[in-house]
Parts: sequence; C-alpha cells; structure tokens
Amino acid sequence: MSEAMKTEPLRLALAGLGTVGAGVIRLIETNADLIERRCGRPLRIVAVSARDRGKDRGVDLSGYAWEDDMTALPERDDVDVIVELVGGSDGPALTLARKAVANGKAFVTANKAMIAHHGLGLARDAESAGVPVRFEAAVAGGIPVIKGLREGAAANEIERVYGILNGTCNYILSTMEDTGADFSKVLAEAQAMGYAEADPTFDIDGIDAAHKLSILASIAFGTELDFAAVTTDGIRRVLASDIAQADSLGYVIRLLGMARVEPSADGVKHLFQRVHPYLVPKDHPLAHVDGATNAVVAEGNFVGRLLFQGAGAGDGPTASAVVADIIDIARLWESENEIDPPFSIPVSELDANVPAETGNHRGKAYLRFMVNDRPGVLAELTAAMRDANVSIESLIQKGAKDSGSDDGSVMVAMVTHEGEEGCVTRALELLADSDSITAEPLVMHILRQ
Amino acid sequence: MSEAMKTEPLRLALAGLGTVGAGVIRLIETNADLIERRCGRPLRIVAVSARDRGKDRGVDLSGYAWEDDMTALPERDDVDVIVELVGGSDGPALTLARKAVANGKAFVTANKAMIAHHGLGLARDAESAGVPVRFEAAVAGGIPVIKGLREGAAANEIERVYGILNGTCNYILSTMEDTGADFSKVLAEAQAMGYAEADPTFDIDGIDAAHKLSILASIAFGTELDFAAVTTDGIRRVLASDIAQADSLGYVIRLLGMARVEPSADGVKHLFQRVHPYLVPKDHPLAHVDGATNAVVAEGNFVGRLLFQGAGAGDGPTASAVVADIIDIARLWESENEIDPPFSIPVSELDANVPAETGNHRGKAYLRFMVNDRPGVLAELTAAMRDANVSIESLIQKGAKDSGSDDGSVMVAMVTHEGEEGCVTRALELLADSDSITAEPLVMHILRQ
Repeated sequence: MSEAMKTEPLRLALAGLGTVGAGVIRLIETNADLIERRCGRPLRIVAVSARDRGKDRGVDLSGYAWEDDMTALPERDDVDVIVELVGGSDGPALTLARKAVANGKAFVTANKAMIAHHGLGLARDAESAGVPVRFEAAVAGGIPVIKGLREGAAANEIERVYGILNGTCNYILSTMEDTGADFSKVLAEAQAMGYAEADPTFDIDGIDAAHKLSILASIAFGTELDFAAVTTDGIRRVLASDIAQADSLGYVIRLLGMARVEPSADGVKHLFQRVHPYLVPKDHPLAHVDGATNAVVAEGNFVGRLLFQGAGAGDGPTASAVVADIIDIARLWESENEIDPPFSIPVSELDANVPAETGNHRGKAYLRFMVNDRPGVLAELTAAMRDANVSIESLIQKGAKDSGSDDGSVMVAMVTHEGEEGCVTRALELLADSDSITAEPLVMHILRQ
Repeated sequence: MSEAMKTEPLRLALAGLGTVGAGVIRLIETNADLIERRCGRPLRIVAVSARDRGKDRGVDLSGYAWEDDMTALPERDDVDVIVELVGGSDGPALTLARKAVANGKAFVTANKAMIAHHGLGLARDAESAGVPVRFEAAVAGGIPVIKGLREGAAANEIERVYGILNGTCNYILSTMEDTGADFSKVLAEAQAMGYAEADPTFDIDGIDAAHKLSILASIAFGTELDFAAVTTDGIRRVLASDIAQADSLGYVIRLLGMARVEPSADGVKHLFQRVHPYLVPKDHPLAHVDGATNAVVAEGNFVGRLLFQGAGAGDGPTASAVVADIIDIARLWESENEIDPPFSIPVSELDANVPAETGNHRGKAYLRFMVNDRPGVLAELTAAMRDANVSIESLIQKGAKDSGSDDGSVMVAMVTHEGEEGCVTRALELLADSDSITAEPLVMHILRQ
C-alpha cells in the first residue's frame, strides 16, 4: 500500500456474520468517529459474506456488497483487509486465509483453532507476501494479551506464561465453588443459559485452552508453535468435594494453560505446555478471577509478574480485539515489506522446541483417591507414596458422607511436598492393581507462586 | 531515518544513571540477543551522562562515551534516541527533552511529572519534527498500560479509566489493613525499608498518582492533558479505624486515580479527574491488589472491563517499560512523518476538556466524624444530613476505645445512599461550626462497580 493512501479509508471485507461478525459491524459503525481519529483514516466495510443472506442479524447490511462465496472476497480490488469470523481449523476458513495472503490482502482472524494448527504456515506465506496477519481475538477474547507479550513485554525474557483461557470452564469451576454443586449439574445449567455449548467437549476437555496456550507460548518464547505438544486435561473429573478440600488447604481450582521453557543442558529450548486443573494459592491473583473472565500472567526477567484480565468471549470483547488489529494495520501498513511478522519474529528465525519431559517437572501435587472404607487402606496408599519417593505434606481422609460418593467409598486427599512429577506417576502405577481403590485417582498440580 | 538503516543498530544515549538508568543498561546487556531478534536489529548504547562520573553503579560504563553535560547528548551525530531518566518536571530534564526533539532525535522518558506538566508542548514539537516521544514507563512502572489504552483498547470509547497508581500508598494502606497499625507507624516502617521517600509528600498526598492519572486520561479520552484539573487527596488522614470500619461494611480502602468523561448537554467533554482514597467493594478486582503493586482498569463500550496489573516501580519493571518503548521505535521509526503522535491523536486534534463539576457527580460516600461522647450529637449529625438531602444507608457509632482517638472522642461512621456529592459538601458546611465535632470530618467516596 502506498504512503499516499494513508489518509484513504482502509477497506474491509468480512467473512462470517454470526454474533462476532455482527459485533464487528456494530462496533465499526458505533465508534466510527473515534476510530478515524485514532487511525488517522476511516475504516470502511466494503463487502460481506455468510451462508444465509436473508437472516436478520440486527445490523443493516444494505450498504455492503454481498458475496455468496466468501473465497470471492480476496479477489476484489476494492478490499485491503479480509476479516475471517467463520471458524473451524480447516475447510473454508483456511482456504480463505491462504487466498487472502496470496492475493496480497491483510488478514485478521479470531480463529484460534486455525492459528494453532496452521498459523506457522500462514505466517510464512504472509512474510513472503509482505502482508499482515493478525489474531489478537484468537486468545483471551477482548484482552490485548498478544500485543502485551509481543510489544509491551518485548524487552523481557519470559519465564512462564499461563492463565485462565477458557471462560466456560472458569464459570463452571467458580460456580461449583460458590454453590457446592457438582460438575454435571453446573454444566447443565451453563448449557441452559448459553454459557456452554450443547457439545461442550472443546471447552471442558481443555482443547480450546490448548489452542490459545500454544499461540501464547510461541509469541512469549519465540519458539515454533506446537499445538500437538500440549498435554491437555479437562475439568470433567473435578468433584465438589475436591473443591471443598482445596479450599480447606488454601487453594482454589482453576483450569490453567501453563507454558514455560525448561532449563536444559543441550542448549535446545525444552518447552513445557500443559492445560490442567491447577490448585491456585488463594493469594495468587488468578485465584480471584471468577465467572467467565479470562486472565493471563506473564513473568519476565525484568518486569516481574504482569497480569492481563478481561472478558474472554462475547461479541463485544471479541469485536474489540478484531478491530484493534484492524486499527494497527490502518496505522502501520504502508508498504509491503515493513510489516511485523505475525509471530513477532520471522518464522524462519523462531527457535525449534522439543517438548519437555513432564516427568522431570518439579512441583507440588494434590492427589485424590476414592477407596473402600476398611482397615489398612491408608497404609497401602502411604506405602506406595514412600516406595515411589513421594513425600506427603498433608493428608485428609473424609467420611463417606463428605466424600461425594454414592457407593460408600471414602475420599483420601493428600498434598505432596515439591518433587518430580514422575514420582507421582510411579506411585499411581504401584497402586494400579489395588482393589482398595474404587475409582481412578485424580492428580491436580499446584501452581507455584 | 532511512529504510536502509532498519537492520543497523538503533543508537541510544542515556541521561541519568540512578537505579533505573543502571537497570536499563543491565536489561539491554542481559537481553541483547532476544531484543535483537524481536526488533530485527540490535540496540546499542553509545553515550551516557550523569552527575558523578566516578560513582560505582554496578554496571560497566567503559564501552560508552561519557558526557559531563547531558544536553550535549542530542548534539551527537552517532545517536538516534535520547533516554531521559533524570527526573524533575522542569530544569535539565525538560531542556534535554526539547533539545532532543529539536535535533531530530527520538525521546523516551520515565518522567511522569514532566509529561504531566509539559507533555502537550513536547508532543506538539515532536509532531512537527516527525520524531517519536514515548513515556510508557511514566505510568504504572512496568505495566504496558499506555500501549494497552492507545492500541489494545483503541476500538473502544472508554467510559472510565482508574486504578492504583502509587505503590507507596498501596503498600501503606494494605499494610495498615493487614496489621491494624496506624498510618504514621506504617509510613515510618516503609521509609526505613526504602519503600517510601524521606520526604513522602509526592506519594502520600496523591501528587504522583495525579501526574499519572492526567496522562492516562488524555490517552483514554483523546482530550488535552490537564494535570491542574485533577482534584487530589492523599491518605494521611486515613485511620486504622476507618479501615476496620470499611472492612465491616464490605470494602477495602485504596488510593485510586479516577477519570471519566461526564455526560453533558453542551457537547463539550467534561472531564472528571480525581485522586482519592476510595472505598473499593471487596468483589472488585482492585480490592485484591496488595503491597506495592499497581493496577489500571479501563472500561470500554465494547470490550467491557480490562485490568492491567504489575509492578508499579523498581529498576527492573521501569527499565522493561523504557526498553519496550525503544523496541517500538526500533521497529517502527522509518521515516520522519509516519510515527504515531505521542498522545496517539495529534495534539491539534485532541478535544478540549472542561473540568466536570464535582458537586454534580453522583455516588455513595463514607463519612467519618470524631465527636464528643454526649447526648444529642447523633441527632445533630443526622439532622444536618437530612437538611442537606443526604440519605443515610448505614451508620455505626463506636465507643472511644475503638475509635482510635486519644481525647475521649468517639467515632461515627456512615455510608450514604447514592446521591450528588454536592449534598455531602453542604452537610459538612452545615456542621462546620458544631462544637460537638472534635476533628475535621473525613469523606471517602465509594467506587461504583
């Protein structure tokens, strides 16, 4: 784009007119004046595309050209930026993205699954083509955390980046905490209220959070994005009695995405990436993040701990992040070879990363067993811990009544001293064939302050 | 700067080598490799200046040219960016800033007082000269909140921006909260530990927070910076018994800077700016910000509530913000007329603002009286409230023992229903001559959720 065009409108095409797409239109119309002041030029929506032309979306589309086929949008000469709000990791969204870049258009998306799976390839193409590709809205909704890491914390070596990346899980866990209700009941309520999908798998099994974590890790550490290397647990197995137990020990339970670079002797970055229901100390800022709110912590070697918090989903917050990306493009995109790479560092210069050995990771853990209420069971559990070299910091056995079980089992919960995770795994292996244990044990790691 | 220079080092001169200056040198040396990867070119410190050449600062200065007179730094042809870490709103820092801009150098500073007093003039000069002026480190230390507002939340009309902007005050208030100790004792301890200055006036009387608030407000609302219009109270008069009283009512006390644009019929933006010890509801995220931490909340019309939290002072965090600005300049400053204006919008296009009438501002308030312990006093107080049209939501009278007084006075604390602040002022006027009141009453406003 030539410099002469810098006061001309930046011309947009939107693919996908669901709640977020309609939100983007509403935002650009409502805040047009202030956006023009902040950009130095207006944003102008030129064309839109969605499946059903006739559907009422609460916004007037009559001023925009309509394309039945969204892959026609990048062919238009009157468009500078393609905004993809269709979703899905492959298929039409990816086709659109590739075509946008190939045709020299800027590309803005909220699509975390596509960036997690295909972001590096898209970035490589975008760098060759000299076009911007941006995805602030793909991580933590309205929170400008990609900008915060790429630019705000750019002077720092980041030691850990972690946070609450899925609002549905945080809503469920904090509601279980407030009401004492069990997971399945709270999930059903969340579905009835529209806070959880009819098929909640992506959210509650941690996949959505893993998409976002893999993007954050690449930006924070300058390593190649590697979604497949994220170890992912969800929250299905967390009981109301686990939450009560954690509370009595000084913790809350939050599904966190956690990434850190592990020290290694060979000079290769070993990247630890895990989505997991962590026990969070009550005096950690993430312990106070309730409801559908998201929050991301980055710990840098000079800045210390930074926290970014806000709405992780919803049409308004997501539209805010999408349009922030568009405003950056309006301000900065002047010629084809000067735009920042999508992952801040060119793909060819990102460090390779090797997944860290989880077993070597050190920390404290919470272990919960459901066991038969008979003599000798505690001795059996504690002997396994001793034999696997797991040191127990505290242990509580609850009666059947407080264990949340319906088969007369009792709950034994323990917190370990800091040690290697591999030892905990070994202890569970030693107990695998025990007929005292009535349900699969649950391990939750404890967030280190 | 020509595009050909974009892989050349960006050459820096540092004025001021106190703890922050030494921190900037340490950061640039320690993180040199990753900064070069993120910038696409290295940062190189070329020259430094400070008062005492011989002083040991824990960093090796032998590789840098030394200037006894810091105003010689902008005259050097081998320097692209002047980094000012001297401090002071006028005097040498301002002279340096003006000379840097006049000589076509980029200018980066952590100097909140100078920006609050002279930022608009400097920005005007910088825009004419086509050079960047940046001051991320001037507000909330290491937290990238200016970037968050300018860029991350750029798509939003901001409704309120507020936060904990002074770490010393927050340390004192949260320590009073934890220990029950009185202000003067905690201040003395903070001074002994180096958390408070020997002359703490700028911090505890709210002036430092007011500097930062006026900068935030200009960026958030696109209005002319107006430090003189900030109403400023400090925390000297907050008693341990106020904190206990607030606690029992569901609040903590935090010194907040608060800015909002008030609705007005005449189309002119009326800007409300106040630094004040607010009562913060315990379920508000700012209620959990303890110790020397800073936190800023911005509420936008699409994004909702964003929170940015981190270290508000210290050499590492401040250096992180200074170098983030330098990295932005290294990435973006390519030719003289394309750099973003210092306040995001050109000074000539910022809206004028008229200070809002505080008396019309609506809210709830906490009022604390120290009174003689005799019949009729409560009737006198409540009659004044009635006559001034102040509606009382709750009222507690404490015995002399729990009132923190040493003259036998008792404490009467009340919380009002929402109403105009002018009514509270009027009630206090009605009571001005009362001989039942033994000390000047304290009014603290309550943060609206």
